[in-house]
Amino acid sequence: MLTSFRRASNKVGLPPGTLVHIGEKKMEKTGISIIDYDESQFEEQRVDAIEQCFPFKDKPTVTWINIDGIHEAEIIEKIGKHFEIHPLVLEDIMNSGQQPKAEDLEQYVFVILKMLSYDEETKEIKPEQVSLILGPNFVITFQEREGDVFNPIRDRIRKAKGRIRRMKADYLAYRLIDTIVDHYFIVLEKLAERIESLEEELVTNPTPETLQTIHALKRELIFLRRSVWPLREAVISLERGESALIHESTGIYLRDVYDHTIQVIDTVETFRDMVSGMLDVYLSSISNKMNEVMKVLTIIATIFIPLTFVAGVYGMNFKYIPELEWPWGYAACLILMGIIALVMVLYFRRKRWL
Amino acid sequence: MLTSFRRASNKVGLPPGTLVHIGEKKMEKTGISIIDYDESQFEEQRVDAIEQCFPFKDKPTVTWINIDGIHEAEIIEKIGKHFEIHPLVLEDIMNSGQQPKAEDLEQYVFVILKMLSYDEETKEIKPEQVSLILGPNFVITFQEREGDVFNPIRDRIRKAKGRIRRMKADYLAYRLIDTIVDHYFIVLEKLAERIESLEEELVTNPTPETLQTIHALKRELIFLRRSVWPLREAVISLERGESALIHESTGIYLRDVYDHTIQVIDTVETFRDMVSGMLDVYLSSISNKMNEVMKVLTIIATIFIPLTFVAGVYGMNFKYIPELEWPWGYAACLILMGIIALVMVLYFRRKRWL
Amino acid sequence: MLTSFRRASNKVGLPPGTLVHIGEKKMEKTGISIIDYDESQFEEQRVDAIEQCFPFKDKPTVTWINIDGIHEAEIIEKIGKHFEIHPLVLEDIMNSGQQPKAEDLEQYVFVILKMLSYDEETKEIKPEQVSLILGPNFVITFQEREGDVFNPIRDRIRKAKGRIRRMKADYLAYRLIDTIVDHYFIVLEKLAERIESLEEELVTNPTPETLQTIHALKRELIFLRRSVWPLREAVISLERGESALIHESTGIYLRDVYDHTIQVIDTVETFRDMVSGMLDVYLSSISNKMNEVMKVLTIIATIFIPLTFVAGVYGMNFKYIPELEWPWGYAACLILMGIIALVMVLYFRRKRWL
Amino acid sequence: MLTSFRRASNKVGLPPGTLVHIGEKKMEKTGISIIDYDESQFEEQRVDAIEQCFPFKDKPTVTWINIDGIHEAEIIEKIGKHFEIHPLVLEDIMNSGQQPKAEDLEQYVFVILKMLSYDEETKEIKPEQVSLILGPNFVITFQEREGDVFNPIRDRIRKAKGRIRRMKADYLAYRLIDTIVDHYFIVLEKLAERIESLEEELVTNPTPETLQTIHALKRELIFLRRSVWPLREAVISLERGESALIHESTGIYLRDVYDHTIQVIDTVETFRDMVSGMLDVYLSSISNKMNEVMKVLTIIATIFIPLTFVAGVYGMNFKYIPELEWPWGYAACLILMGIIALVMVLYFRRKRWL
Amino acid sequence: MLTSFRRASNKVGLPPGTLVHIGEKKMEKTGISIIDYDESQFEEQRVDAIEQCFPFKDKPTVTWINIDGIHEAEIIEKIGKHFEIHPLVLEDIMNSGQQPKAEDLEQYVFVILKMLSYDEETKEIKPEQVSLILGPNFVITFQEREGDVFNPIRDRIRKAKGRIRRMKADYLAYRLIDTIVDHYFIVLEKLAERIESLEEELVTNPTPETLQTIHALKRELIFLRRSVWPLREAVISLERGESALIHESTGIYLRDVYDHTIQVIDTVETFRDMVSGMLDVYLSSISNKMNEVMKVLTIIATIFIPLTFVAGVYGMNFKYIPELEWPWGYAACLILMGIIALVMVLYFRRKRWL
Repeated sequence: MLTSFRRASNKVGLPPGTLVHIGEKKMEKTGISIIDYDESQFEEQRVDAIEQCFPFKDKPTVTWINIDGIHEAEIIEKIGKHFEIHPLVLEDIMNSGQQPKAEDLEQYVFVILKMLSYDEETKEIKPEQVSLILGPNFVITFQEREGDVFNPIRDRIRKAKGRIRRMKADYLAYRLIDTIVDHYFIVLEKLAERIESLEEELVTNPTPETLQTIHALKRELIFLRRSVWPLREAVISLERGESALIHESTGIYLRDVYDHTIQVIDTVETFRDMVSGMLDVYLSSISNKMNEVMKVLTIIATIFIPLTFVAGVYGMNFKYIPELEWPWGYAACLILMGIIALVMVLYFRRKRWL
Repeated sequence: MLTSFRRASNKVGLPPGTLVHIGEKKMEKTGISIIDYDESQFEEQRVDAIEQCFPFKDKPTVTWINIDGIHEAEIIEKIGKHFEIHPLVLEDIMNSGQQPKAEDLEQYVFVILKMLSYDEETKEIKPEQVSLILGPNFVITFQEREGDVFNPIRDRIRKAKGRIRRMKADYLAYRLIDTIVDHYFIVLEKLAERIESLEEELVTNPTPETLQTIHALKRELIFLRRSVWPLREAVISLERGESALIHESTGIYLRDVYDHTIQVIDTVETFRDMVSGMLDVYLSSISNKMNEVMKVLTIIATIFIPLTFVAGVYGMNFKYIPELEWPWGYAACLILMGIIALVMVLYFRRKRWL
Repeated sequence: MLTSFRRASNKVGLPPGTLVHIGEKKMEKTGISIIDYDESQFEEQRVDAIEQCFPFKDKPTVTWINIDGIHEAEIIEKIGKHFEIHPLVLEDIMNSGQQPKAEDLEQYVFVILKMLSYDEETKEIKPEQVSLILGPNFVITFQEREGDVFNPIRDRIRKAKGRIRRMKADYLAYRLIDTIVDHYFIVLEKLAERIESLEEELVTNPTPETLQTIHALKRELIFLRRSVWPLREAVISLERGESALIHESTGIYLRDVYDHTIQVIDTVETFRDMVSGMLDVYLSSISNKMNEVMKVLTIIATIFIPLTFVAGVYGMNFKYIPELEWPWGYAACLILMGIIALVMVLYFRRKRWL
Repeated sequence: MLTSFRRASNKVGLPPGTLVHIGEKKMEKTGISIIDYDESQFEEQRVDAIEQCFPFKDKPTVTWINIDGIHEAEIIEKIGKHFEIHPLVLEDIMNSGQQPKAEDLEQYVFVILKMLSYDEETKEIKPEQVSLILGPNFVITFQEREGDVFNPIRDRIRKAKGRIRRMKADYLAYRLIDTIVDHYFIVLEKLAERIESLEEELVTNPTPETLQTIHALKRELIFLRRSVWPLREAVISLERGESALIHESTGIYLRDVYDHTIQVIDTVETFRDMVSGMLDVYLSSISNKMNEVMKVLTIIATIFIPLTFVAGVYGMNFKYIPELEWPWGYAACLILMGIIALVMVLYFRRKRWL
Repeated sequence: MLTSFRRASNKVGLPPGTLVHIGEKKMEKTGISIIDYDESQFEEQRVDAIEQCFPFKDKPTVTWINIDGIHEAEIIEKIGKHFEIHPLVLEDIMNSGQQPKAEDLEQYVFVILKMLSYDEETKEIKPEQVSLILGPNFVITFQEREGDVFNPIRDRIRKAKGRIRRMKADYLAYRLIDTIVDHYFIVLEKLAERIESLEEELVTNPTPETLQTIHALKRELIFLRRSVWPLREAVISLERGESALIHESTGIYLRDVYDHTIQVIDTVETFRDMVSGMLDVYLSSISNKMNEVMKVLTIIATIFIPLTFVAGVYGMNFKYIPELEWPWGYAACLILMGIIALVMVLYFRRKRWL
């Protein structure tokens, strides 16, 4: 979290609209792919030079240009020029530290989202920034690295399955956003698994490591929460926005995405409540254990301290200690000690400490 | 809670409107029953094929179609097609992980509610999703399993008791919603009983199990809270919504449901406050007990440690210890010890530790 | 709190508008009294049959009908029929578990309030529900039991003191509401007294009972808070509402009631802050005491443990312990012990533990 | 705090607009002073009878009537009658337990403020209620006691310094409000001093008294907060209000007062944060101390307990204990003890407890 | 923090618009520099007398007047008079204790910002107040001391790089604000570094000093938060404000600044969450350590106390203790002790304390 943030401060002092990649460079060469379709026709190609995308801008068919890699300023700039995108928008696309947002810029709608994936090894949530520009009949997406989350959509377009080939660019944009939000549920599922195993650990054998894990989980949830709240704002502004680029029929689909977002937020909040509860359970189980330890100490100590005192008394070397001379002195002493111990034990019993 | 959530992630990647049942399959075969009535006539039947419901769609009488079981995509789809229901709505009906909501979709109003019941054995609140579609002269309800909560309404329709036969479909919808909200009070009563018995336990004999129960209760309340807050939103949107399907005369009844919802929320919040208070009481009672234990240890230890020291001194084997030779040395030593103990006890008394 | 709530669940399943009394039956027979007045004339009577009130409905004079007892459904129903009151309103009147609210129902305004009194014995706040219906020229009040809080108003009407005889029914309603809100201050005063005596107790001699009292007080305040917040909403909706039944000149008086409500809320919140503060003070005073106890243990133990060890050494029975043979061995040993004790004490002094 | 509140409950049952002084009587005789001015002329007098103020009401010049003492109902009533002030406003003026507020009553604007001063002895903030009525060309102020905070304003009017003689009554009202708000900074400064000295105390020598002081300070801040938040509301309603009595040119000045109020609130909130932080520091410093004490006990005890055991073993009186007969037995035993002690110390070192 | 605040109270009692410098005097002589440019021409000069700036007021070119030093009332006053700036605005400029804000005063827009820098030595954030007046074709900036943060902008103007020479005064104002907000990221980076090193310290070796640092950091964040929240308000009011001085084309740039502000706030909130989490980790690590210490004490004590008791028993001097006479008594006793110790250790093992 801190690393991603730190890089942002490198840009301080540069004028607005300066295209500098901020973030980890996640791949070598920018990959560009084009899908162009309408109800009757379909075309797909991977291109090397960005200029090959330009002719699609004014075609009446729906064009989806996908850019994998946001570190090459030159490519981003060329797209910006040809598709008439504001330099500040381009700057945002190249800065992977952006918060999710949706902006209606009249000629196009600009959406920034966070694709989340769960790294099984580090047990951390890894964000990837996906920017999306929705124009009148094209959608341009920018990803930080090549990925396959959009493949099911590509498949459906290729095979002309379902609604997608009959609909316009805004429906494509919706499908892309929906896919990203849907992937949040996978991350949530991983977290749910961790929470469940943690709960079991908490009941069977809580250790200081359990506490570490709880705190780590809490932190992941803070991070997740920071991502989903602005996402909700972004989806609301898309749904309610009056952009001419989003047709009325797409509204109900966006409301569905909104419902999913709410469900994600709701789950995150529930997880937070659960993790907080686990912290409480952990702390009180530790304190219970401590209390038990203390009780044992107290019981052992309070039983034996008086007995040792008695032994000490009859270990004194006074010339005249009458009891020492008694034939049954030792036995009497042991019996006395037994009685003292018994009284103590009974007292503890009554106090419910034993 | 976690289980119901986890299943939702299975659907990731499917296109919107895909009808997949999400949730536990709670019954084998979908049951379909139809009640059709107006002020003068009444008809009731259980049908096997969903197609038998279709003729009722355009009849001027009020028709209530009740579907028990939401796992058969085919049936849901057929209803959807005939009654012109949006695929996304059908998707929501089949996904038992939805939050309560009400949506006005012009041709019909779509409401999702959670029916709650209290499982005496596991001491958990069990939710069942009930979806309701209010059309111009029909109401379609979807339940996860057969149940009898709606039987009193059926009875009243059969016997033409009260207002219900004179009113339209919106009043029927209101009665169904009202019945579900009313059942929340039964769950709340069970919780109230548990809270009361817990309070008694807390005063008489708090154990670590008490803490477990408090945490479990806290969790149930978090869960309950998550269900009732969106319910409130749903009822508000029904009451204030300007759907032509809801007549003005039904408004006051919906306000009454709203008042009940507020009462439920209010009770849940009070329970939360009470359970929080119980946690505090538990923790301070535990800490009180601990303090008492520590005090006993301190008192016993601080009284006997000096005495044992004295005994130790006169147990030393120095050649020349004058006191050991005194005839009354032993008695003097015992008296000295008595005085030390007395001084200690008085000191503790003054400090109010004894 | 829990008892009053539990009774509400008995009504689950009954149709809306069913008149069932919910709450404790606080008196035997319903008492009905009528006061009818205008600037020049005055009439007061206690009647046995509710029908005797009916002729007053259409008289141009202001009529105040007071019903003591809300358990007889028949009487409530008759009033409802004659004065054309909605069945749901009648249901609310008979259900003593309602939250304060104000509803403008065009022909009349319906207000529910909680009259609070402080039971000196149980030290609990006892609520009584007062419902008020303001019609064009009549006010009907429903109380759970006979009481005398409205007597000063009756007196002023009888004696034609002040504004009241010159004003309309809405002013009477205002005066009744104002009287109820004013009584909150008496309850607050009692709480203030308890808080003050508790504060003294906290400083002089905090016991576990103090904690119990703090928690009880906290609970009373939670309860009180739940009553006053909706009261505020109710008063706002009366003041801002545009009911034709409330004349503009009464507005400033309602704003005054609103100010009082705010003052009550503000005091309740301050009390809550104070009680929270007291809890903190209690806990830290207990922990201070504990620390002191622990310190004494530590000091006694750490002083005597080394001394006892020395005594133990010279109590050993080795054949050749040279010190034991020294003539001044014993004295030297005692001096050594004294030095050890002194060093310990000085160390504790420097550490500021003594 | 509690005292001022308790007196308010004495008024319960009295009709609205009853003029009863609520609060401590802070002076004997009501003092009345009049300042009348416009750009060219100036007149100042102290009068004995309130009637002497009446002629100023209709003069075109700006008249400032200052009343010191709010306990004489007769005087307040006379003013009320002559200046046509609503009885409820008069009631508020005489009740010193009011919250700050501003009300636009068309013929005049009514403002209640709290003048704060800091009592160096009791270290408490003392509030004094100042009411202000702004009419078309007059300002009437009511103070609980004679004071000199308005003297600088009087001076400026007398000497015709600055803007004030050229401006209307609303500017005078602004200057009075501004002066009161400015005095809050003096109180804040005193609190800042206390916080600073407390912080020093916390670092050098925290005692239970420190805790008392922190709690007292916390309470003062709760009280202060309760005064300044409604003040903010009052100033906003003045600034944004569309009273014809407040000229547009005064708006910017009121915004300035608003800025100051925000600064006061902001400072109070910062102080609260700081005092909360101090509480945390205190508690953890106490717990640190405790831990240190416990550590010393543990170390001393765990070193000497095994040693004392060894001494005990060789103090046993068995006939045949071979070690006791060894010539170097004693020395060996001492060396053994030394080794045990050393091992213990090294163990503690490694665990970083020493 | 407290120092800067305290100085503000010195001004109490002075009339509004009095020009008194509040704050630390950070430089000797006020420095004045002028930059005047349009697309084709550029002029830059340092002047000694403020009057030299006046001719630029009515030139159609963009003029940027920068004043370093806000302590000389005379200079501020002269500017105020010539540029027709309201005295209250001048007062705010000279008072370095202002909160960030933006005010649209029709002839000009007035903005107050806090420039933040991080003092590596004291590890504190140092604020410097920057005021900015945007007129139709001029920008006047006031800084507390000479600084170089605006140098990159000066450079770009000089070299006619980028957009700046083609744009109007509002774009210049935007660039200045943007630069200041950008510098927040540098401060955030320093804080991020400190948080990171603190986290490491927390894991490896937490000491009471760690706690001090956490509290200090918490405080810095409270302070930072207080600065950035009003900044957000200020930027919103600029962006949404309908000042004729801010052209529509600058709107998108201001939205970009707004996005940065949100990012700063978001980071501050995350830091706060992290520091809170660190506090929890610290406290539970301390308590873990304490528990470990206690456990060692308990184990050592509970093992040796019974053994010492046994040694004590056979150290008694009774005439007839049969065991003492046994030839193998000593060995048997040692074996008994070994068994007791073993049982204890096994018991602790089973309880998982060892």
